[in-house]
Amino acid sequence: MSGRVTNDIETDVTRSPSSRHHLENLPYVHKVGLPPKQKLLKEFKSTLKETFFHDEPLRPFKDQPKSRKLVLGLQALFPILDWGRDYNLSKFKGDLVAGLTIASLAIPQDIGYAKLANLDPQFGLYSSFVPPLVYAFMGSSRDIAIGPVAVVSLLLGTLLQKEIDPSNKVEYQRLAFTATFFAGITQATLGVLRLGFLIDFLSHAAIVGFMAGAAITIGLQQLKVELANNTHRSFILGLSSDYQIHCKGKKNRKWFWVPAIAPLISVIVATFFVFITHADKHGVAIVNHIKKGVNPASANQIFFTGGYLQKGFRIGVVAGMIALTESIAIGRTFAAVKDYQLDGNKEMVALGTMNVIGSMTSCYVATVITPLFKYTPNAVISSIIISAVIGLIDIQAMILIWKIDKLDFIACMGAFFGVIFVSVEIGLLIAVGISFAKILLQVTRPRTALLGKLPRTSVYRNINQYPDATKVPGILILRVDSAIYFSNSNYVKERILRWLTDEEEQVKANKQARIQYLVVEMSPITDIDTSGIHALEELYRTLQKREIQLVLANPGRAVIDKLYASGFANLIGEDKIFLTVADAVLMYAPKTEEP
Amino acid sequence: MSGRVTNDIETDVTRSPSSRHHLENLPYVHKVGLPPKQKLLKEFKSTLKETFFHDEPLRPFKDQPKSRKLVLGLQALFPILDWGRDYNLSKFKGDLVAGLTIASLAIPQDIGYAKLANLDPQFGLYSSFVPPLVYAFMGSSRDIAIGPVAVVSLLLGTLLQKEIDPSNKVEYQRLAFTATFFAGITQATLGVLRLGFLIDFLSHAAIVGFMAGAAITIGLQQLKVELANNTHRSFILGLSSDYQIHCKGKKNRKWFWVPAIAPLISVIVATFFVFITHADKHGVAIVNHIKKGVNPASANQIFFTGGYLQKGFRIGVVAGMIALTESIAIGRTFAAVKDYQLDGNKEMVALGTMNVIGSMTSCYVATVITPLFKYTPNAVISSIIISAVIGLIDIQAMILIWKIDKLDFIACMGAFFGVIFVSVEIGLLIAVGISFAKILLQVTRPRTALLGKLPRTSVYRNINQYPDATKVPGILILRVDSAIYFSNSNYVKERILRWLTDEEEQVKANKQARIQYLVVEMSPITDIDTSGIHALEELYRTLQKREIQLVLANPGRAVIDKLYASGFANLIGEDKIFLTVADAVLMYAPKTEEP
Repeated sequence: MSGRVTNDIETDVTRSPSSRHHLENLPYVHKVGLPPKQKLLKEFKSTLKETFFHDEPLRPFKDQPKSRKLVLGLQALFPILDWGRDYNLSKFKGDLVAGLTIASLAIPQDIGYAKLANLDPQFGLYSSFVPPLVYAFMGSSRDIAIGPVAVVSLLLGTLLQKEIDPSNKVEYQRLAFTATFFAGITQATLGVLRLGFLIDFLSHAAIVGFMAGAAITIGLQQLKVELANNTHRSFILGLSSDYQIHCKGKKNRKWFWVPAIAPLISVIVATFFVFITHADKHGVAIVNHIKKGVNPASANQIFFTGGYLQKGFRIGVVAGMIALTESIAIGRTFAAVKDYQLDGNKEMVALGTMNVIGSMTSCYVATVITPLFKYTPNAVISSIIISAVIGLIDIQAMILIWKIDKLDFIACMGAFFGVIFVSVEIGLLIAVGISFAKILLQVTRPRTALLGKLPRTSVYRNINQYPDATKVPGILILRVDSAIYFSNSNYVKERILRWLTDEEEQVKANKQARIQYLVVEMSPITDIDTSGIHALEELYRTLQKREIQLVLANPGRAVIDKLYASGFANLIGEDKIFLTVADAVLMYAPKTEEP
Repeated sequence: MSGRVTNDIETDVTRSPSSRHHLENLPYVHKVGLPPKQKLLKEFKSTLKETFFHDEPLRPFKDQPKSRKLVLGLQALFPILDWGRDYNLSKFKGDLVAGLTIASLAIPQDIGYAKLANLDPQFGLYSSFVPPLVYAFMGSSRDIAIGPVAVVSLLLGTLLQKEIDPSNKVEYQRLAFTATFFAGITQATLGVLRLGFLIDFLSHAAIVGFMAGAAITIGLQQLKVELANNTHRSFILGLSSDYQIHCKGKKNRKWFWVPAIAPLISVIVATFFVFITHADKHGVAIVNHIKKGVNPASANQIFFTGGYLQKGFRIGVVAGMIALTESIAIGRTFAAVKDYQLDGNKEMVALGTMNVIGSMTSCYVATVITPLFKYTPNAVISSIIISAVIGLIDIQAMILIWKIDKLDFIACMGAFFGVIFVSVEIGLLIAVGISFAKILLQVTRPRTALLGKLPRTSVYRNINQYPDATKVPGILILRVDSAIYFSNSNYVKERILRWLTDEEEQVKANKQARIQYLVVEMSPITDIDTSGIHALEELYRTLQKREIQLVLANPGRAVIDKLYASGFANLIGEDKIFLTVADAVLMYAPKTEEP
């Protein structure tokens, strides 16, 4: 292997004869590639594919016989048909242990979460039974636990009680089912239409802030409940349980999976203690009214007409999106750690179906546990919730966000304080708003950079990043760091002219050579649209007035195509388009400059 | 000047000793630049500046004494104070001729435009008098003509008549004034808050389609009016006038400025003819009821309370934005041709103030012309409007859009057919919708490319664009063409893994060397946020599982900063970050490969 790779040869043959002599001793020249024309339909299909099917859900179906396609299709919809065939007793044993462990954590939590949503405790239990069953058939993540979560319960509670007073139980429950139904419909629809990427619009930073804010709100609310109970024993019970779980909570997200039955033990001990001592008669508030037996179907309770239909729909859409954000984020984390692909859209269909079925048939079989939970002190439930939500406050993540991106940190804090000091909805609105503002900034204000030559190389880099890079006299080299679209075309044009004006002032002050060439490094300009071409034309005309030549370096595949299609390449002259900045400089730099 | 520029030397010193021998005969090595840390406040200020003050409106104020700053400030608000001092008789003569020319075109047009908005003809005249006066004091474009325009008039008419029946004249006029007032407030507010870039979100293509659709709608409407009149004479008059102006219309946008008094002559001839022959008594519909005299102030007619306040506000915001889009686009075109900078935000303040004053005090002084116009046949007005709007159908632009960007063309056609077959609002909605969808696509689905080495160079380019570029065995080189933000971080990660899977399949089929290194060319990645860093981490972990090394080439200023801040640079190893792809290949390519 030779240590030398020569770069002196990336030059264009289509140059004017007057400057041909520069190239005489070059062994090889390379033109800017004009890619083969794509057929319109093909181009369109590829755009559609990248937008909606970038994960190639149909790849396994390729070149398969029809009967196999049917099987694969069913397996895609119901992954249990795939993994179920290899399921055996030893796997079942493992799952049973895991299931009991999770249940020990989830059941008391779910009772509490139902309270956050202003619902009777049994609904928490219903929700931790049917949905996981549906998910077991349709879901593709092996690692996520299904059931109500704190933030969504709180959000649902806040939104529902704005419409109906929770004391009006029947109507309130009906609206809750309606919202759940539409949350499911929303999720499934997003999945079927392959619009799953929409949930990516809630940025990580915003979610961190929102979750932390919601956690503190929930925590304070629970603490208030505990303190309001005002009984010595209840408070101590609560604190002791709190302490136990808090320790585990510090071990971070993984603690859901640690075989920790501490919460259930707290619950059992406390319940037993209350049951023996009749503490409920002496002031310890208990869960009490958990309904026994299998719950009747609730499909008939969903509002399909009337004013509440619209309200339930609105609440459902919001709650459904937030629930998705949470579950997809968690699912993705596990998928990355264990290296398997998670089809976000398929997941959404599974989660959506699960919620639709849940809203209609949430049945109740945990008869054995019910009488036991009757005597569980509310304080224990509260402290379990507090411990669970404390895990949502991710200080490490916040510090990292602060370090990486200050704008992200503002989004994070905006959502955080919005939830704490105003309301869950406002916090959410702030989070979405700042996330969108960031996208707005990205698409309207792309970065531009002044390039200089790194000493003893032919590499041109941002002068700000490489302070030893030097400018080429008489040539201003700029790089535009984004596709040029209607949303930024005017900014890009004006920003380039500002660089030019700044540079001209400096050149004048230092009595250097007048700027004669403006080289635009186009490598990062991945695409350009009609507005972008117009902006380039306007730039070209303005430069003409100032007697400065516009030179382009390394336009990409899509850009070179459009430069020719629009006639812009002919307008500025094909000989003004180079493969690299080095080539352009080689052509136009004053000869006295080189050694 | 030497024809040879060597590139063999852009290499990093921080490499592992085992591969140091590659570099032994290299004269010089260059590290990836870690830019000097910016102070937080400075960074924040610079972001703010680029977002809202990228055009540096305060540049002339720098280093000036206070009194001078005051003068400059007043001149910025009222440019007339600047250019007015050099105004002289000879300039006035030129302006007088230009003014009369424009008036000859504008006055009959404006009467027609008022009709599009379902208003009495005198309001068209009012609107072509006061607003230009205000603009003369505050505006900074020397080339645009102020007055009602066809599309905005039509839009206003459509939106207003949905709320109040135009036959209810007083209320309808009041709502029109209210809408105008809030249109002005919207425009001025956008300007003062420097949010002018928001109008850039209506893409050029969408505007072309919308305008053409509106033009055809207006044209058909006018034709219907003419045909409904059903009088032989009126129709002939109309057609003759139409023909005259249509010819000029073909000369394209410039015809507004051609000293063409044809329309006024048509009007005068036709009016005179009708006046002499009493044709109005024989069935020729005439303008008739133009009010004489100075109009009373209309400030008291604006709805500042009640239900119409909200409706007027909503209509005003929409109409104000559309009006802005049109005037800023025209202003920019002229600014580019004549090479002067137009401060979009300052323009908006001027236009807004103009509309606010217009809505409150539209007075009427054209008494001389009024009795004359009384006998103008409606057909002439109609045909003048038709001629004017035909100029809005820019077939050339549509063809260019088709050539450059098929998605843009869809936006254009969507707006076009939306306006024609549904309504002005739906057309507008489609235009905005498709424009936003395009932005969505841009920020969620950035392009990625597989790179290969151009023969006999050290330049790596898209294999699709340069078919002679060759892959390096055992190394997969990819380029991501966008900043990695929360909106696309998952897609980017998954897309990279898909490239890898595709390549591995191919390598396996061809029995080539296993892929051991994945080089990501980061030049176009201008920024990365917390979600982006997370995606990279997930990518790194997945690659680790597959025993593939992740290598980065040329991270930019912001990116290298964040790679270090987040600890990612240490995670993958600093020696995995190179200045160029060529450097990385030089380090990792199998030695037997090179000649």
